[in-house]
Amino acid sequence: MLPFKNIIVLDKTKKQPLYRQVSLGIIAAITKGVLKPDTFLPSSRALAEILSLHRKTITAAYEELSIQNWIIIQPRKKPRIARNLPLFTETTIGSLNNFSSYKIDFPFLINKTANTITEADRVSEISIDDGYPDVRLSPIDELLKTYRLFASKKYSITNAHVGTIQGTLRLRKALAKYLLETRGLAIMPANLLITHGAQMSIYLASKLLLKKGAKVIVGKPSYSIASNAFKSLGANMIEIPVDDKGIDTDRIEEACLQQEICAVYIIPHHHYPTTVTLSAERRMKLIALSKRYKFAIIEDDYDYDYHFTSAPYLPLASGKHHGNIIYIGSFSKILDSSLRLGFMVAPENFITQSVAYRKLIDGGGDGYMQNALAVLIEEGGLKRHLKKTKKVYHQRRDFLDCLLSEKLADFITYTLPLGGMAIWIKLSKAYAVKKLQQNKELHISRIDVAQNAFRFGFASMNKQELQTAVLKLEAILKKTKPLNV
Amino acid sequence: MLPFKNIIVLDKTKKQPLYRQVSLGIIAAITKGVLKPDTFLPSSRALAEILSLHRKTITAAYEELSIQNWIIIQPRKKPRIARNLPLFTETTIGSLNNFSSYKIDFPFLINKTANTITEADRVSEISIDDGYPDVRLSPIDELLKTYRLFASKKYSITNAHVGTIQGTLRLRKALAKYLLETRGLAIMPANLLITHGAQMSIYLASKLLLKKGAKVIVGKPSYSIASNAFKSLGANMIEIPVDDKGIDTDRIEEACLQQEICAVYIIPHHHYPTTVTLSAERRMKLIALSKRYKFAIIEDDYDYDYHFTSAPYLPLASGKHHGNIIYIGSFSKILDSSLRLGFMVAPENFITQSVAYRKLIDGGGDGYMQNALAVLIEEGGLKRHLKKTKKVYHQRRDFLDCLLSEKLADFITYTLPLGGMAIWIKLSKAYAVKKLQQNKELHISRIDVAQNAFRFGFASMNKQELQTAVLKLEAILKKTKPLNV
Repeated sequence: MLPFKNIIVLDKTKKQPLYRQVSLGIIAAITKGVLKPDTFLPSSRALAEILSLHRKTITAAYEELSIQNWIIIQPRKKPRIARNLPLFTETTIGSLNNFSSYKIDFPFLINKTANTITEADRVSEISIDDGYPDVRLSPIDELLKTYRLFASKKYSITNAHVGTIQGTLRLRKALAKYLLETRGLAIMPANLLITHGAQMSIYLASKLLLKKGAKVIVGKPSYSIASNAFKSLGANMIEIPVDDKGIDTDRIEEACLQQEICAVYIIPHHHYPTTVTLSAERRMKLIALSKRYKFAIIEDDYDYDYHFTSAPYLPLASGKHHGNIIYIGSFSKILDSSLRLGFMVAPENFITQSVAYRKLIDGGGDGYMQNALAVLIEEGGLKRHLKKTKKVYHQRRDFLDCLLSEKLADFITYTLPLGGMAIWIKLSKAYAVKKLQQNKELHISRIDVAQNAFRFGFASMNKQELQTAVLKLEAILKKTKPLNV
Repeated sequence: MLPFKNIIVLDKTKKQPLYRQVSLGIIAAITKGVLKPDTFLPSSRALAEILSLHRKTITAAYEELSIQNWIIIQPRKKPRIARNLPLFTETTIGSLNNFSSYKIDFPFLINKTANTITEADRVSEISIDDGYPDVRLSPIDELLKTYRLFASKKYSITNAHVGTIQGTLRLRKALAKYLLETRGLAIMPANLLITHGAQMSIYLASKLLLKKGAKVIVGKPSYSIASNAFKSLGANMIEIPVDDKGIDTDRIEEACLQQEICAVYIIPHHHYPTTVTLSAERRMKLIALSKRYKFAIIEDDYDYDYHFTSAPYLPLASGKHHGNIIYIGSFSKILDSSLRLGFMVAPENFITQSVAYRKLIDGGGDGYMQNALAVLIEEGGLKRHLKKTKKVYHQRRDFLDCLLSEKLADFITYTLPLGGMAIWIKLSKAYAVKKLQQNKELHISRIDVAQNAFRFGFASMNKQELQTAVLKLEAILKKTKPLNV
């Protein structure tokens, strides 16, 4: 017989009940291979004697082991260690080991529905982003104070998991009021869905609108992640050029005459990536076309609030339309990109379906953060934040404008945008934007090889950083041999 | 001529430049309908005289209005208000109005891909949840302190938007180490995807595995939201009964002999909703079947850490398999359901595709929160939290067990679960669970009409609350007339 007194080590000073120590000891021995499958254990009486314990203790241990299928108890026989045991890795928990079933590839077919991406884990020393807000100005501290309040014992219990699929009622109410006051959108909370960001809103809207083979009109250039979402759902893209007045609505009309258009995706305010604003005339034309040819408009208005000149155009969604505009906004651009909060405005029946689908792809949002944001809006904190940052971003835009004119006039052309957080810079044909991005001293987030252009996000950089970046660009371009064009 | 001196009100004390006040005044007049489309404005010289301003001021105002397409300037003619204007609602921004394009239904076809849901906005006074953690015990305060540190000026700049599609490297490293130590999962950070929760992981895995018509085996009963996700992707469900040893693997084998099975979705640890644990024997059989019949296993292990008896079974994913197990976990159940954090473990090639698709449906996670969680794990805070709450939940389970035996023995049957946060209670046939849920004084989150059962989430309730709930159930059932069965 095996030396059970050594195999099962007991410590009567421990709080853990003795029967538990016995069963754990046996499990450990089985795990290590000291006790083999399909072999016998001593009877409860015998083991009790060996370990100097009460027989009841052993019985209890054996019962527990039996419930968990480590051993099989049969009447009038000794207990037997099960033939088939719970699986182990060769690792005993706690020590490192090379064995892993995950070192190999997944062995079956994987639906390739999207292009794989590589994300940088570090940023270069000088980094020009795509047009992100300056997190240093973010009101996140204020938000977190409120968050902690909501998460505290007093408030959390009753409301922890309520209403987060569509978004908390409190946030939808505050947001509806805010959107009316600042964007002329007259809606009810039922017209709102709170998501994890503009991208999720785009995906959900697409899921409800598009079938395989559906035709979607997008600008050229456009926001490729949105196009990829449409494509992944089986839609076909029709690319319509974007000029200095925005997407060409005459060409949209031509397309409508030739085929059935399901939806038009536009970024009418600070177009991405070109930053242009869709003209008033084209806005009206687009609405008229959407009525005549019965297509939906997906209006992506990700940074409405940062418009520097006179009162901006109101969103198309604010005007007279046929309930066929799905309006998408985001707090990631106006507050902090880590705050995964965006929204969708649509007729109630559309929102209801979106909520149903949202539940399948994601359990919902963070109720505390949503209510913290609601409080920020209710108490005017959002407006104060926007007022402050708008001023700063306006200054940074102008400062960058000066720097670009001063230092890079020989290499670039651009139109100063009326708002937003980035300038769309076209590089002279003599220089390839791809090479620029490959430079190790400088990281540019977003380039467009076809347009030979890149986005210079100025909002997140203070004057010194803007200067450093432009000087670095200047140095690189001056060293680069111009192509023969 | 219209009385422009009244229409355009100037305030020289305001900081706002005069030319800006002029253009805004004209815009306001156009908006209100005082100035009509396609009518003429005074020449710059004339308006300057009327308003007693310098001509340059008016020229600047007109230029701005022209850029924004409010007016059209033609040489040697008076400026003309544009025929087509930016759209307005009848609301002038700031005042309430009934007009809304969103009062009507969306006019086109909406793909109905999921059953609509109605979410309660309030909870009843006595509320029995589905098995959620007690937010009062949540380490959210500790997390938020670290969150604030990361979001502070010092740290935020360099890392704000890096690596959040797959999840920050820091969290994936910490999690990989934690999963090895506690679940025997030997993986690299590249095998991890951080999502917004188990549901998102399920959705992504399904997207990569399932095509229209694909067959997926699920338990009966099972987690309906997962099934709905599979169905929405066009898959067909094959329901296999779940008994006290978990899903019936013999019946799974029968199904495999008759048709091609794409995937099997299991919750082997604390099955939802029945709470049973899949036996060792069946676990081994399932792995063998998955190899022989070449199907993927989606292992949903949403609350692994709360197991009250001896060392729990290790996940199937920890053992020897063929890289065909997609392992899904969640922090929502073990920390706080508002923290939208879950993960997926899979071979690297599968994760890569998941990341690519994730980017289409959601811009990524909250990098600050992810790194705050990483710190909690690194510093042992997660283990401490689990140790503390496991003890509490164990006590609550046992307390509820006593209450149920004492008060409701005549009405119910149940098996005490080995872990988890809920008890699956079967109601006597003489009482309909649907009626129970309809009672206004008591809200039960999750019932199963077919099984005439409900889940009693005990973890989130202290002893007093458990007592109140059980007494309420007793009172209701005693008042209910038993059916003739």
